[in-house]
Amino acid sequence: MNPKIVTFGEVMMRLSPAGNRMLRQSNSMEFFFGGTEMNVAASLSVLGLNTKHITAVADDFVGEAAIASMQSFGINTSNVIKNEHPLGTYLLEVGSGNRSSRIAYNRLNGSFANINPSELNWNEILEDAEYFHWTGITPGISENAYLSLKEALQVANSKGIQITTDPAYRSNLWKYGKKGQEILVELVGLSTIFIGGVNEINEILGTNFNSDKEGFIEASQKLKSEFPSIKNIFDKIRMGKSASNQITQGRAWLDGEYFETNELEVNNVVDRIGTGDAFAAGLIYGLIHFDTEKALNFANAACAIKHTILGDANLASAEEISEVMNGNSGGRIKR
Amino acid sequence: MNPKIVTFGEVMMRLSPAGNRMLRQSNSMEFFFGGTEMNVAASLSVLGLNTKHITAVADDFVGEAAIASMQSFGINTSNVIKNEHPLGTYLLEVGSGNRSSRIAYNRLNGSFANINPSELNWNEILEDAEYFHWTGITPGISENAYLSLKEALQVANSKGIQITTDPAYRSNLWKYGKKGQEILVELVGLSTIFIGGVNEINEILGTNFNSDKEGFIEASQKLKSEFPSIKNIFDKIRMGKSASNQITQGRAWLDGEYFETNELEVNNVVDRIGTGDAFAAGLIYGLIHFDTEKALNFANAACAIKHTILGDANLASAEEISEVMNGNSGGRIKR
Amino acid sequence: MNPKIVTFGEVMMRLSPAGNRMLRQSNSMEFFFGGTEMNVAASLSVLGLNTKHITAVADDFVGEAAIASMQSFGINTSNVIKNEHPLGTYLLEVGSGNRSSRIAYNRLNGSFANINPSELNWNEILEDAEYFHWTGITPGISENAYLSLKEALQVANSKGIQITTDPAYRSNLWKYGKKGQEILVELVGLSTIFIGGVNEINEILGTNFNSDKEGFIEASQKLKSEFPSIKNIFDKIRMGKSASNQITQGRAWLDGEYFETNELEVNNVVDRIGTGDAFAAGLIYGLIHFDTEKALNFANAACAIKHTILGDANLASAEEISEVMNGNSGGRIKR
Amino acid sequence: MNPKIVTFGEVMMRLSPAGNRMLRQSNSMEFFFGGTEMNVAASLSVLGLNTKHITAVADDFVGEAAIASMQSFGINTSNVIKNEHPLGTYLLEVGSGNRSSRIAYNRLNGSFANINPSELNWNEILEDAEYFHWTGITPGISENAYLSLKEALQVANSKGIQITTDPAYRSNLWKYGKKGQEILVELVGLSTIFIGGVNEINEILGTNFNSDKEGFIEASQKLKSEFPSIKNIFDKIRMGKSASNQITQGRAWLDGEYFETNELEVNNVVDRIGTGDAFAAGLIYGLIHFDTEKALNFANAACAIKHTILGDANLASAEEISEVMNGNSGGRIKR
Amino acid sequence: MNPKIVTFGEVMMRLSPAGNRMLRQSNSMEFFFGGTEMNVAASLSVLGLNTKHITAVADDFVGEAAIASMQSFGINTSNVIKNEHPLGTYLLEVGSGNRSSRIAYNRLNGSFANINPSELNWNEILEDAEYFHWTGITPGISENAYLSLKEALQVANSKGIQITTDPAYRSNLWKYGKKGQEILVELVGLSTIFIGGVNEINEILGTNFNSDKEGFIEASQKLKSEFPSIKNIFDKIRMGKSASNQITQGRAWLDGEYFETNELEVNNVVDRIGTGDAFAAGLIYGLIHFDTEKALNFANAACAIKHTILGDANLASAEEISEVMNGNSGGRIKR
Amino acid sequence: MNPKIVTFGEVMMRLSPAGNRMLRQSNSMEFFFGGTEMNVAASLSVLGLNTKHITAVADDFVGEAAIASMQSFGINTSNVIKNEHPLGTYLLEVGSGNRSSRIAYNRLNGSFANINPSELNWNEILEDAEYFHWTGITPGISENAYLSLKEALQVANSKGIQITTDPAYRSNLWKYGKKGQEILVELVGLSTIFIGGVNEINEILGTNFNSDKEGFIEASQKLKSEFPSIKNIFDKIRMGKSASNQITQGRAWLDGEYFETNELEVNNVVDRIGTGDAFAAGLIYGLIHFDTEKALNFANAACAIKHTILGDANLASAEEISEVMNGNSGGRIKR
Repeated sequence: MNPKIVTFGEVMMRLSPAGNRMLRQSNSMEFFFGGTEMNVAASLSVLGLNTKHITAVADDFVGEAAIASMQSFGINTSNVIKNEHPLGTYLLEVGSGNRSSRIAYNRLNGSFANINPSELNWNEILEDAEYFHWTGITPGISENAYLSLKEALQVANSKGIQITTDPAYRSNLWKYGKKGQEILVELVGLSTIFIGGVNEINEILGTNFNSDKEGFIEASQKLKSEFPSIKNIFDKIRMGKSASNQITQGRAWLDGEYFETNELEVNNVVDRIGTGDAFAAGLIYGLIHFDTEKALNFANAACAIKHTILGDANLASAEEISEVMNGNSGGRIKR
Repeated sequence: MNPKIVTFGEVMMRLSPAGNRMLRQSNSMEFFFGGTEMNVAASLSVLGLNTKHITAVADDFVGEAAIASMQSFGINTSNVIKNEHPLGTYLLEVGSGNRSSRIAYNRLNGSFANINPSELNWNEILEDAEYFHWTGITPGISENAYLSLKEALQVANSKGIQITTDPAYRSNLWKYGKKGQEILVELVGLSTIFIGGVNEINEILGTNFNSDKEGFIEASQKLKSEFPSIKNIFDKIRMGKSASNQITQGRAWLDGEYFETNELEVNNVVDRIGTGDAFAAGLIYGLIHFDTEKALNFANAACAIKHTILGDANLASAEEISEVMNGNSGGRIKR
Repeated sequence: MNPKIVTFGEVMMRLSPAGNRMLRQSNSMEFFFGGTEMNVAASLSVLGLNTKHITAVADDFVGEAAIASMQSFGINTSNVIKNEHPLGTYLLEVGSGNRSSRIAYNRLNGSFANINPSELNWNEILEDAEYFHWTGITPGISENAYLSLKEALQVANSKGIQITTDPAYRSNLWKYGKKGQEILVELVGLSTIFIGGVNEINEILGTNFNSDKEGFIEASQKLKSEFPSIKNIFDKIRMGKSASNQITQGRAWLDGEYFETNELEVNNVVDRIGTGDAFAAGLIYGLIHFDTEKALNFANAACAIKHTILGDANLASAEEISEVMNGNSGGRIKR
Repeated sequence: MNPKIVTFGEVMMRLSPAGNRMLRQSNSMEFFFGGTEMNVAASLSVLGLNTKHITAVADDFVGEAAIASMQSFGINTSNVIKNEHPLGTYLLEVGSGNRSSRIAYNRLNGSFANINPSELNWNEILEDAEYFHWTGITPGISENAYLSLKEALQVANSKGIQITTDPAYRSNLWKYGKKGQEILVELVGLSTIFIGGVNEINEILGTNFNSDKEGFIEASQKLKSEFPSIKNIFDKIRMGKSASNQITQGRAWLDGEYFETNELEVNNVVDRIGTGDAFAAGLIYGLIHFDTEKALNFANAACAIKHTILGDANLASAEEISEVMNGNSGGRIKR
Repeated sequence: MNPKIVTFGEVMMRLSPAGNRMLRQSNSMEFFFGGTEMNVAASLSVLGLNTKHITAVADDFVGEAAIASMQSFGINTSNVIKNEHPLGTYLLEVGSGNRSSRIAYNRLNGSFANINPSELNWNEILEDAEYFHWTGITPGISENAYLSLKEALQVANSKGIQITTDPAYRSNLWKYGKKGQEILVELVGLSTIFIGGVNEINEILGTNFNSDKEGFIEASQKLKSEFPSIKNIFDKIRMGKSASNQITQGRAWLDGEYFETNELEVNNVVDRIGTGDAFAAGLIYGLIHFDTEKALNFANAACAIKHTILGDANLASAEEISEVMNGNSGGRIKR
Repeated sequence: MNPKIVTFGEVMMRLSPAGNRMLRQSNSMEFFFGGTEMNVAASLSVLGLNTKHITAVADDFVGEAAIASMQSFGINTSNVIKNEHPLGTYLLEVGSGNRSSRIAYNRLNGSFANINPSELNWNEILEDAEYFHWTGITPGISENAYLSLKEALQVANSKGIQITTDPAYRSNLWKYGKKGQEILVELVGLSTIFIGGVNEINEILGTNFNSDKEGFIEASQKLKSEFPSIKNIFDKIRMGKSASNQITQGRAWLDGEYFETNELEVNNVVDRIGTGDAFAAGLIYGLIHFDTEKALNFANAACAIKHTILGDANLASAEEISEVMNGNSGGRIKR
């Protein structure tokens, strides 16, 4: 059987004016269900792995639609909680050229923020799991979310499960009275694979490394010295030339060695949301199937191709990602 | 100059799956901005009157779009407040035949619920106004909304402004610790024109009148005896044969006399939302331009034709409403 | 080879807000190319006959699109003129229930109004034709259109071609200085089959017959006495219960005998435009293939089924029209 | 755990011109994945039961999309076969009023028709199943489909599984050289619950019962005498007044007793496809949860409400179906 | 209170085939209301200034929709005239890559062309105004439009109002018998700020300066010597690499000094229409808020970002424009 | 009269998820009718030539829609055959950036594959024709298609008609038992103008020339020596930088001389399908109107501009193609 990966985090409805309009000139919106951790599960399911996502949704037709969306990817939703609070939403106004995309969130009083830790039996949920994935968004939403996550990490540690984390600090969260940095330090200390780079390390450690290769290596060494449980550090760099053009590159500090991938250029960006999650999912898939360096290359290609796919989730197959990794320019039709 | 009408209440984004789909089988939604009191202002603006709507919206591109929508109707938005909370939303899954429409709200922590009473200068806002309109939804949203409304009513009373109210009690509101009935009693006591019928009177007074003509008269008499400021009582009755077919009728207790309108049948219902608001707006327009009985007929016709118009607001002109009032079946094209 | 039918008249772009919206709340419109005489040609082409439509369109990408639309029905467009004036347009706001549809025209200075009679060689155009069809709209648009039509009728008469006419008087035309009634008298006098009823006869003759069966017979007798070239008179009656429900019936005065069809009820009207043209086309098809009474029944069924088809043209096949004529309720799927 | 229901049959892509257009005037189509047996599984999944659907799909992005659609309903797809043949499709042109809907199929050389019986291990598939559902379409598609189905029925019988069947004979199938009637006799003989009425019985037995109540009872008695394995017979009657209005009624012959339900009227039909499958699914759900008579009423209500839901599958919840069963007219919004 | 800016010119409905189709392969169009001078008012309103637009629209539902659109931007429409002529329209077929966009106009007999100068009381309209803006299109449409504009300029001059003009000569106008060059000379002589460059100066003066920096300076000197009322000259240069890629740059001759801005590159052009109007509006905004050189930079950035916004009007905020002015590439999401 | 061109080949319905979605995340598809040979006829019709396309379509509403589509281009469809088999279809999932487009076909058992050679009277069909065009797809579909084509070529030869061929070998065809290479050799031997390059020549002759200029010349010489009927060889080269960016170039071996065109760059590719057919049509048009070298340039420009047009057919006019040929970058609007 396939390795089982468990993810935990908010599922939101994302809404965008159709046809590249600004909201004020639009009367319809396209929507997707997503969330940074669910996106990882969705991508891993599409890649053929066995995933389960843990979250709380509204006990109404919106929550049902969110569950149907997760199921369509093949994610196991049998532990999703329903409660009386509305599902979180965000509006994304998609930019173009030198007009930036804009996001307006409505998530801080939703169904996930009101998750009840006592409803989650992590021993059962994590049974037979090989990977658990979390991000810095979850503990920033509410104290309940933080407490649920901490318990999950403790149980996962007790079971020897690999714990991947993308612990980015988001300043528009953390409204419930806890200090983000302290909590991230606590939770990263319970994790084994760090997906992030100089920015994330500086945020967590209060350091001031610069973002070039040397800075990345020094920051990684510092991180490993502070958090002995962290084995490897994987980072993605995205160089945004415009809202429509991006370059992606991966780098890693692996047991004392530095690796970096080729740069991949993405023209005609269709959707930037979820490209970091595509990297994380590509990395987990790669770590399961390939050596560490190839895993990094696969993750970077997954990140690149996600820019061409609408919605939060990377729907590319392993074959398509591998082709991009091996230099496919997209210029020929596959019949 | 036109008489000025001031309305006060939440503006929400309403979202519906396009093309009569259920949410779980949809990937796009149409949206409108509306709210029961704003809908009254919108309809009165379209009818050519001078309106101002007071509300609070998010200080982001969603709030800007809400303001643009109000402006498009011709509503004066110069006193709209912006704050850091998200605009309220609701999802409407439109039914058909014997499948009921469903609504999921997300409004209790939004920009209007967090309105700051001290930011509203009602003396200035109500200067020169002839009508002020409120509904029972506003005080049910939050204590701030209630306090703002109470102050508005007190100032309006001091200025001798006509105060219309549709004081329906909604059980899914009133989560902030106040008892709905008590507050509605307080606020109806500050109003002059009651738009509602036996249900609303029973809710407010705790009585048990039945809903036929006799019950309506008795309830109206009781209401007037309890609230001397209330001069007239106007009610709409909608008999729903299916999600697609409705019958509307107006009735009134006017200074001791009972009136009722013809029944108007509406086939091929396009949108039920806002039909009560169309009645209220038609009534206010009628009271300004016609005698009371014709005002009731105009209000009922406004309610009927609104069922054929998409969105929250009644966009029918006075001429179109009058035609329906006078029996237009809609069967001929107007060239 | 199939009989050849020639039609002459304006082709317009018709635009309607998508999804039953009113124009002011819409940001997109669906469009069709049509015009009362072109609609007859389109329907006859779909029914398998050999048609040619004569008109003038703009010499730009709009005119090209109009020609492509005519070609898609199979209409011969080899005599369509192109000139420097814009194609006529009209906006149709589709009603529902008791809200009437509304039309706003922009046609009086367009490419057809500016048609140059000298560019039309009617002797060539009408070679081998068996039917020529015109309506009262064409001579109302401009003097050039009137002069072109008169010449066509004279040539058609000289060739013994059957001339069908739907000579409705439209008060929003006739802005170029001619008196509509006088010109219609002149042109009906050059025609052989009258498609119209009491209203049209009263308009043309200045009479005042009423619209019941007796009035229709008397009016028909009067018409035939005034216009000896007219052989038969065919009329459609549409009883509009609402914008969404119609009843159609045909009646005729045929060489001194009265006939009427069954009433056909149409629920869930999709599109009322072009239903009269569908009647005319059904009649011409019927006169070619059936006896006169069956032709009337076929015409009425064509009129009925057109109400269920979007756009100006009746796209129903002869088989489908016959099924409606024979009582098909539409309640079963055809696999 | 929930009872497990296994279904077997073709999954097709269904395509319909958007917005009620005819195909020739359209440039886009909406699509759904469905198939009579999959529809039953989808409805039962939405109702909360444990389902598995067995089929063959194309090994390309079309097949992947079909699987994603099944997963979105919660259907277990772990035994779906992929092969090199294209997924079957059909085009549905939706009628209105007295214009009938039309279907054009492309299924006889597709992935399901080319299913390889040896790839299906029915012993494993049917392990722990309580119900197996099949229809008369499956054996009509190809010999391979027939052979696979026969084996499934034999294995199901050996396990004592309830076998429901809707054995309608479709004359546009059965192109592969087998006589439909003979094969249906063979397969009905292996089933336990017959979903069908006089038409289906006459087709299978070559009898000539008429379709009134008496005929239904006699036909049922005859069926039971010919097929001792059949315990009960459940039938739905749909009286189509137009493409937009239908009446549904259920009747049954249950161990010698006759039952019939109320008539349920459906106005504003949104989608007729899959209403029979909704009946079958409602019946299976009812047989699991209710007594037999209530099961029939639930099935009829499920059939009725499906007419208001787009797509092949009934997405109504048990609560919504029960409301229709208990007389909900759909005229009120559920907030 | 904000400075008041008055604009005068035609409002048209602009229609474009949806989804980058050519008209002949399309069946729906997106539409916007706009016009070069209205676009300036719209942009200034969105930037927070107090604007009034003067125009004439059709007295039907099309005119109402045009007014609603102006109101949605916050433009004061209280002096808009309604008459019996249709609103002008134009069709825009949007190009891509090396296929140019195409426009077909229908404006020369519309409501604005038929504006009645006696209906405009410019003394009242221009009361308290600080800026009046006109373009060379208005006097080219009809003699009435020209006479109305001349009167407006005379009144504005008498009040000491700043008069900005973009006096481009359009050869497809000027059909009413006046010579464009002569009239533009007359009207530019009544203006104070010239928005245009070598092309426009050559057209007006009949000169032949070339378009490089030297030519621009010489042409500007010549213009100032001919028109002493003109104080400054501001020009935008757009270098079109393809229908999808543009470079914009501003230059100015300011009281004897030459300035030019950086080049701004725009990839993934969404909409070219109105980019010149965005420049004019940005300039007026800049002249009110900044020094002249920064005003030019702001105008150029406004022009650049407008290329990324659908519709005629620039909806970017001052903050967004400033970011582009300061080098924002659009590559990051604003949360 | 215009020269007549006859084409022969399958017409398919092509379906693509709307809005750049992947199929599994879509619920609607846009569609076009096309096919490599029909595309050539469509383009030549739009360019003003007289074309007739020979094919077989389904005798249902799908076939009618295909015929209407051909007619809309102006193609003569009077010899189109209808039979009982479904119209071929293909699904195109449009890529972006480095994600390749994907196609899934369903054509091998459709109406064209089942064409009956005896229903085609080539002597009549080819009467007065000057060009006949075929591709290597047609004989690969079925034996019937091959036999029909061979007969057409024999008749065309007997009439001295120019025979153009694009004989590409497609490995996913040729399932009916014939060896593709042998049949292509036979059929190319009956043709006069070869549209293809090194790849096609290598496939047919089993040679191994490389694809540079020298290889092309050698391969062309070899081809001419093997097939004396072939006079000229024209090739297009497309260099795909990504799914969104392409470079096109034409080259030719003309009676012993080598020519090549400039490279034309296409950014913002809208649709790659049919660009080769646009080359072929441009070439035929060019050969009729220009000298051979200019014909090659025109063909290359036609190929380039087709990348910017949605659908299978090149809708650009001769004027637009000539502009691209002469360097138009697309950066200006044509008013």
